[in-house]
Amino acid sequence: MSRHDVAERLTEVLALPPGPVNLAKLPTDATPGFAGGKRAGKRALAELAPTVSDLQERLFAEGHTGGTRSLLLVLQGMDTSGKGGTLRHSVGLVDPQGVRITSFKAPTREELRHDFLWRIRRALPEPGYLGIFDRSHYEDVLVARVHELVPPETWMVRYDVINEFERELTGNGVTVVKCFLHLSKKEQKKRLTARLEDPTKYWKYNPGDVDERARWEDYQAAYAAALERTNTSAAPWYVVPADRKWYRNLAITKLLVERLSDLDPQWPPAEFDVQGELARLNRT
Amino acid sequence: MSRHDVAERLTEVLALPPGPVNLAKLPTDATPGFAGGKRAGKRALAELAPTVSDLQERLFAEGHTGGTRSLLLVLQGMDTSGKGGTLRHSVGLVDPQGVRITSFKAPTREELRHDFLWRIRRALPEPGYLGIFDRSHYEDVLVARVHELVPPETWMVRYDVINEFERELTGNGVTVVKCFLHLSKKEQKKRLTARLEDPTKYWKYNPGDVDERARWEDYQAAYAAALERTNTSAAPWYVVPADRKWYRNLAITKLLVERLSDLDPQWPPAEFDVQGELARLNRT
Repeated sequence: MSRHDVAERLTEVLALPPGPVNLAKLPTDATPGFAGGKRAGKRALAELAPTVSDLQERLFAEGHTGGTRSLLLVLQGMDTSGKGGTLRHSVGLVDPQGVRITSFKAPTREELRHDFLWRIRRALPEPGYLGIFDRSHYEDVLVARVHELVPPETWMVRYDVINEFERELTGNGVTVVKCFLHLSKKEQKKRLTARLEDPTKYWKYNPGDVDERARWEDYQAAYAAALERTNTSAAPWYVVPADRKWYRNLAITKLLVERLSDLDPQWPPAEFDVQGELARLNRT
Repeated sequence: MSRHDVAERLTEVLALPPGPVNLAKLPTDATPGFAGGKRAGKRALAELAPTVSDLQERLFAEGHTGGTRSLLLVLQGMDTSGKGGTLRHSVGLVDPQGVRITSFKAPTREELRHDFLWRIRRALPEPGYLGIFDRSHYEDVLVARVHELVPPETWMVRYDVINEFERELTGNGVTVVKCFLHLSKKEQKKRLTARLEDPTKYWKYNPGDVDERARWEDYQAAYAAALERTNTSAAPWYVVPADRKWYRNLAITKLLVERLSDLDPQWPPAEFDVQGELARLNRT
């Protein structure tokens, strides 16, 4: 272990406290639970890699042999907050075979014909899998609210629907890990500028990003409401300061490690006669 | 570059020559196109990582901005030939965000109600994606033939159906990279034994594996027929010696690098006024 390892439980340090949410009061550039800087943070992440990989493989093995548990990581945050980077640097540490990533875009016409959770349910991880939602059902109380895509009476009831849905999920063995990547408006400007200054990043830029940025306060209000109203004991929110990419990657990986460790998946015992099989194999 | 880099094009070295296929004559433990050993091979793989990652990201960027091309890696091979290991060590080198892995098991009842390509079509990679098939439509001329799951007249016509299907795919911008992981019977025994001697690997073992192993020659015949009859110019087969895991990982990564390089995906140009956007962004 490095001198700067993440000693504290980030599931405690980063958990959103119950009650009213004031995002302006929550840090975007701090490194809660970690005393080191960027270099130490990258080393700490590398040190976590075998652990998260081992835990994921155990969960996968469990699912392969009749287990019913899975983990769903929900990533939410403003544009450039690093949902994609998290996929690469945190989720990328585990065996891709056991990972199912779903990136939710604007709903298709078919999706719009159904309840907002329809497409979400279809993307839930199977037993043993690590499911990742890059955006999620929360968009239906975020962009839907900010842009008035549906009338208020529609999105207003969705918080309770979401809580009920997530309680159902956890009851069915899905560990729901919800991360809000908390970015500052200033850092977003820096990142959008970087996309405009580097031709290899043009493809990540969309003029609509600036329009969305102009609604920053509306989005912060929508996020605050969503976080506050869906911060349940079954599926609590973690607020991850996201201005420092290395910390964001480290924190989310550590959250995964902690929640997977709590599940404590075990290598499944043999459901066959090991010596008998060895003998049978030796005759071939 | 290391002293032992893979200088030759493996797309040439490993391409199955046209004509009759005799698997017994094709090496399982050689390292075609690579002069070094395990250590050098692992180093060469690490050196390829940024290249394959860069190419995959360019393809993804292209798909994100209206491009229609994608790549489909088809992995076939006997049990323990390392389809899973390839996913981890080769496919795991690129951004998981741009990867879609499908592991085909025995068809479900719903799948059986459709043509054998139905489930395959549903799993094809979207534009920009790297799709991976861990087993594939080839099972329908392999296990289906060996176990007589369908009458001969059914599987016998499938070779042509597959060729037509793959020609259609390549015509639609899907680069199809088909790899047969060629394992020796002896090495399979070693790997199955290892699964029985290590409690963390019991979950990977299935008593049916020995039964399948008993049909080794039937499977080799089925593979030989499949390779011979579907080795088209549109979608040629690569025969990857798979007794050495490090070589298998290196070879498949190199094949991906070569085929992606041939596509030569470019960073998409800005479809907006860069200076105008910078000015607009600066006003926020």
